[in-house]
Order: sequence, then C-alpha cells, then structure tokens
Amino acid sequence: MPKINRYQDISQIDREAKKDYIDRHSPFVHCEASAKKAQQFKVKVKVGNEYVHPDDFDHFISYVQLWNGEVFLGEAHFTPGTLGNMPGHVEVDFYIVPQKSMKLIAMAYCTKHGLWQSDEVSVDVSE
Amino acid sequence: MPKINRYQDISQIDREAKKDYIDRHSPFVHCEASAKKAQQFKVKVKVGNEYVHPDDFDHFISYVQLWNGEVFLGEAHFTPGTLGNMPGHVEVDFYIVPQKSMKLIAMAYCTKHGLWQSDEVSVDVSE
Amino acid sequence: MPKINRYQDISQIDREAKKDYIDRHSPFVHCEASAKKAQQFKVKVKVGNEYVHPDDFDHFISYVQLWNGEVFLGEAHFTPGTLGNMPGHVEVDFYIVPQKSMKLIAMAYCTKHGLWQSDEVSVDVSE
Amino acid sequence: MPKINRYQDISQIDREAKKDYIDRHSPFVHCEASAKKAQQFKVKVKVGNEYVHPDDFDHFISYVQLWNGEVFLGEAHFTPGTLGNMPGHVEVDFYIVPQKSMKLIAMAYCTKHGLWQSDEVSVDVSE
Repeated sequence: MPKINRYQDISQIDREAKKDYIDRHSPFVHCEASAKKAQQFKVKVKVGNEYVHPDDFDHFISYVQLWNGEVFLGEAHFTPGTLGNMPGHVEVDFYIVPQKSMKLIAMAYCTKHGLWQSDEVSVDVSE
Repeated sequence: MPKINRYQDISQIDREAKKDYIDRHSPFVHCEASAKKAQQFKVKVKVGNEYVHPDDFDHFISYVQLWNGEVFLGEAHFTPGTLGNMPGHVEVDFYIVPQKSMKLIAMAYCTKHGLWQSDEVSVDVSE
Repeated sequence: MPKINRYQDISQIDREAKKDYIDRHSPFVHCEASAKKAQQFKVKVKVGNEYVHPDDFDHFISYVQLWNGEVFLGEAHFTPGTLGNMPGHVEVDFYIVPQKSMKLIAMAYCTKHGLWQSDEVSVDVSE
Repeated sequence: MPKINRYQDISQIDREAKKDYIDRHSPFVHCEASAKKAQQFKVKVKVGNEYVHPDDFDHFISYVQLWNGEVFLGEAHFTPGTLGNMPGHVEVDFYIVPQKSMKLIAMAYCTKHGLWQSDEVSVDVSE
C-alpha cells in the first residue's frame, strides 16, 4: 500500500477524463454533521459522486472500509456482479454508536486502479 | 460450520430467555418485495428484531453476509466497539443491482454463539 | 446459503467430469492429527486435491474460512489474479493456538459454483 | 486511515518499551528473494519479529493484508482467541503465482494501536 490515491476537488480540474477518473474511484462519506452520544448513527460510504464506476469481472470495487481516525469501524467485501455488471455506485450504509466526536474516513479498493481515500468528515458528538 | 442456527418464529416459543436468545442472534433481511431489473435496490441486514445483542469485547457480532441463493453478494466485518460497547442491533445496508428474481438470505456470526441464518426473503424482479 | 456443497469421496465416483468438479471446488484441511495445548499449530487450507481450479476474472475462489466446530478461526479473501489467472490451488496456512481438542472444517466460495465444505478433521490436543 | 505506522529499525532505538511497541505491531514479509514466473510462491506475513503481541479480547490483531505495490493480493481476518488468548505472533502464509517482479508489503491492524505497514520486500521474478 505504498500509494494511496486521495480525492481531489474535481471542480479545480480541467480535463474531463481526469475528473471522471478521480471522482468515480473516490469513496465519499455521507452523514449528518453532528450525532448524539451513545445513539445509533448512520454513515453511508458511496464510491463516486458524479461519475459511475464499472462492475466488470476484471475491474470492480472489491472492498470499502470505514475508519474513525486510526480506528477501524467496518469493512464490506464484494464480488464482481453485485452491481449487475453495470456501471454504478458501490454504496454501503454502516450504523455505528459513537461515544465522542469523530473524524470519519472511507477507503475503497479498485481491482485495476488501487486504493483510494476519501476526504475526512468531522462529526460532532454531544450528550 | 457443521451447525447453522436458524431463526424460529419466536411467537411460537414460550420461554422468554429462549425468545431473546433466538431473536437477538438472528439476522433479518429487510427490503421491498419487488424490484426493477437493472436498478439499484437497497437491502438492509439487521441482527435482532425485538431483542438487542451485546457489543462486548468477548461477545459481539463479528460479521454479516448477504446471499442470493447460492450467490455471495457481500460481507461486512466489524471489530468490537462499533456499537459503542452497548447492546444494540448490528445493521448494514447493501445496495445491489438485480437482473432477475432473488431469494435473499443473511448470515450473522456471534463470537460466542456461532453462525445464524435468516429466513429467506423472495424478491420479484421485473422490467 | 441454503445449499452447502460437501466433499464426496471421488474414488467412489465414476464420471471423470464429476470427480473433477467435486475435487477442484472442495477445500481440504491439512494438519497434524495431534497438537500441544497452548502451542502454535499450523493448519493449511487447500482448495482441490487432485484437480485445479481456474483463477479467471469471472470464475475464481473468492474466500476461504477455517472453523473449529461452531467457532470461526479465520478467513482469507482474494481478488481474481492472485494465482496469476492460471488454474491452480488456492492455499493458505493459518497458525492457531489450541486450548483443547478441535474439529476443524474449511469452507471455500467459488464465484460460479457456490459454497463448499471440507470433511471434518479431528485434532487431539494434549498438555 | 490518516496515520499509517511504519516499521522502524529497532536496533537504532534505545528505549526497550519503544522497541517492543514497534516490533510487536509491525508485520514482516518473509519469502524468497526470487521466484519463477507462473509458479506458486509462498509469502509468510508474521506480526512481530522479536516481540509478541497480546491476543486479548480488547486488544488483538484483527486483520493482515498482503499487497504487491498498489495491487491487493489477499487479506486474512481473525477474531480474538485465534491465538488462545495468549501473547504470540499472528502469522499467515499466502500462496501466490507471480507473473513479474514484485514489491511486497504487508499491513496489520491492532484494535488498540491502529494500522501498521511493513518494510517493502522486492522479489525478482524470472522465467
């Protein structure tokens, strides 16, 4: 894992092919900005925002992970075909129970284009 | 995996402790009864319906899987603490793209009480 | 997971294609018949004994698991290409530390032909 | 995954507690320095070289991964107790079939002390 690809703001990128490449591989963390301590909290990890990724046998998103800082929260594995072998968004909702504020990060692995890291999303957790 | 525990209808069971034991370990598949072919379809796997399961270090739900008949669709792994070390429901939403009718089954593994299989849920898939 | 395919003794099977089909999909547990309590113990899981399985993009062994009775010991996930896209044996060695006698079982999942269970292997564990 | 801990040469470190901390968390890749193209090749991933890690319920090595550069080769998941709840080395042997020279890296995740990356090991692959 020497190289971790990071999301870049694609509105700052000119070339369409590069926008597409970056966006469709990047996992995004979708959740509320604040949570109640000790209550169930939904966190969606979705790969690609504006662009879709193939679900081909030789080119698919094989797993996604959800982290809170250095702490591993969960991981989902897929085999090719989960998305019907059609371009789409890999998506999974995790449900966690936070005890204090979090910095959430998602990772996604493409079998052709390696490991990608989302932007960090801060969640304020209060009583 | 010689023994797979199966969900039993707890309304048919008298003893409260046994109802609790069976319900809190069983994964349940929650989804619509019908889906459109080649469109994204949400499937929730939730462990326990009326009763909650611990999230203790030595006693937690370590993974859940989603199957369509014999076909593996996805798997989510957790470490203890994902639910804040509090009793609750392990829950994860998968998003799949079906091509034909499905028979969905979920599995859940408890580190103390083994592997559990949900009832099968049929999903009618049409154009 | 309604159907779990089980290894059958292929010496009792006449048809070559069926021998091949059963053998190449079945995981086998290879280890010593006895172990010392509280000492590291190697357990090899190997898919196929006399026949090899493809490692094609649309047809590969996606994961293997090792169980001691109802207790999950470990799981290994692969992506297609780990075996160089050539027919071969998926193989992984786990190292465990037993405290009492074990009944080991391996599972293997083929992306085309479903879930397969090994024969059970007893290991006598003594001081 | 903002922080990845990397192995440091512990012979250059004075404090015993720090040597122990770094060594027992670091995965090490053990394999031959050269391999034959298209032939099975064994790669051992072992966590800790001179120092052992606990296998406590609230403190254990939850998974290891093996990578070839940016390419994911495999992953093994464990639950606490695989090592008999005794200090030891998590160890797993993967068997891969290389087609060209490789740069192998292992990752290991400790449920208390985060993600650790091994040194890179080069393997020369020839006909």
